[in-house]
Amino acid sequence: MPTAGLSINLATVREQWNLREAVEACARHGIRAIDPWREQVAAMGLTEAVRVIGDYGLSVSGYCRGGMFPALDKTARLDAIDDNKRVIDEASALGAACVVLVVGALPPGSRDIHAARQMVAEGISAILPFARSNKMPLAIEPLHPMYAADRACVNTLAQALDLCDDLGDNVGVAIDAYHVWWDPQLEAQIARAGADNRILAYHICDWLVPTHDIRLDRGMMGDGVIDLPKIRSAVENAGYRGYIEVEIFSAHNWWIRPGDEVLRTCIERFATAS
Amino acid sequence: MPTAGLSINLATVREQWNLREAVEACARHGIRAIDPWREQVAAMGLTEAVRVIGDYGLSVSGYCRGGMFPALDKTARLDAIDDNKRVIDEASALGAACVVLVVGALPPGSRDIHAARQMVAEGISAILPFARSNKMPLAIEPLHPMYAADRACVNTLAQALDLCDDLGDNVGVAIDAYHVWWDPQLEAQIARAGADNRILAYHICDWLVPTHDIRLDRGMMGDGVIDLPKIRSAVENAGYRGYIEVEIFSAHNWWIRPGDEVLRTCIERFATAS
Repeated sequence: MPTAGLSINLATVREQWNLREAVEACARHGIRAIDPWREQVAAMGLTEAVRVIGDYGLSVSGYCRGGMFPALDKTARLDAIDDNKRVIDEASALGAACVVLVVGALPPGSRDIHAARQMVAEGISAILPFARSNKMPLAIEPLHPMYAADRACVNTLAQALDLCDDLGDNVGVAIDAYHVWWDPQLEAQIARAGADNRILAYHICDWLVPTHDIRLDRGMMGDGVIDLPKIRSAVENAGYRGYIEVEIFSAHNWWIRPGDEVLRTCIERFATAS
Repeated sequence: MPTAGLSINLATVREQWNLREAVEACARHGIRAIDPWREQVAAMGLTEAVRVIGDYGLSVSGYCRGGMFPALDKTARLDAIDDNKRVIDEASALGAACVVLVVGALPPGSRDIHAARQMVAEGISAILPFARSNKMPLAIEPLHPMYAADRACVNTLAQALDLCDDLGDNVGVAIDAYHVWWDPQLEAQIARAGADNRILAYHICDWLVPTHDIRLDRGMMGDGVIDLPKIRSAVENAGYRGYIEVEIFSAHNWWIRPGDEVLRTCIERFATAS
């Protein structure tokens, strides 16, 4: 079955479908796993989301997203910690394999990336006991350095794994090929992540040349320059056996095509270019 | 004098002025050093460029640029090596402190970044004897990872310094705050570069939030989120005593303002935000 092992991160079709429509479409295409976004779940209501995903028997390869820990104001940081606990509760209800953490970056007005990184470490540390008691793994997603200012100040796999070393068990990494493909240390750090049993998720899309938008111009696998089969081999050789999740933010291409065409293309390229 | 130590990379005013006008303007503003681009020199002619820059007594803190080594075709790689030797000759004629290398990236059609990196190492190695005999230092500029596909596949200071270790003497790094500010290893690698006497140039501008264009939306110092004084301290503490060079690619802001306003602002922000 060409969809075996494939998961669709529902950001990929977020402009075409709501959660119910996306779940129905994935099931229709034989896709067996999804990663929903919190906004999509909130729009439907958690209870109904659990029911619909359960009705179709879909696995939930991850839940997007927790994180966003840094803030200059201490109350705001505590609010973020509370909010992340709600994310863990929602992920548990959905039966998600992990919570994906986009950790956050420089608070507005700050130029202190070291302080932001410290706030991230403290934030994850603060929610980790709750995650452990809920048996919900936390997947730190290192984001491409071009998001260091405004999305996530964890920007390499090595940095994420150092953080994991400090934090202990029940925390790992979400490896997204788009964010890490350029890293001269990539293979070594994937091997390290595998040896430490830290790989909780593997996401794919492609890097387009040229890239017209810093956030919303990700490519379909095969349309860009990332050697996806090679990275997949490294991830699998490191012991990862979970779903491979397609996540494409594409405001001017895939988000304006019919959702069924997008899913058909994901399935085809998952087989031929990943 | 507020311009002491300041150099203007002439890309910063490339849309306003040709080389002669830019040199005259820098001198008028009391700026004592420039880094011209090869196209600017070619448009005027090398002999005349040497004469004009000499007439105004300007220092040349670097020459942009050599590099662009990778190509699938061997003949094209040999052509690149020849061309880089001409760049070294031009830099020598101009009395430049170094040749800045933007090393190149994936050849069109390739997804093999390892091969591209190998071609870069071979290319620099091939021109290094010529650079040494001309006493012209080569400054490898690690570019931000968002340029790994199409501009430079050397993307961290650590990677550039590893390359320097392999290559030997007469090669070092151009540290551009825009490209490296996000790096969790930044301070450690700046210290390493200084200890090995590898810092040949230091470039500044700022990272804007949001960034609207992946190539041409760099900010004026102070308008973005980079902690420039901190990075400058690290570079100076590592022993660097050369010029601090302002290099701003800004298609929709600084390139469409009057050149004199740009230079006045560079001088002001060099004093207050760098």
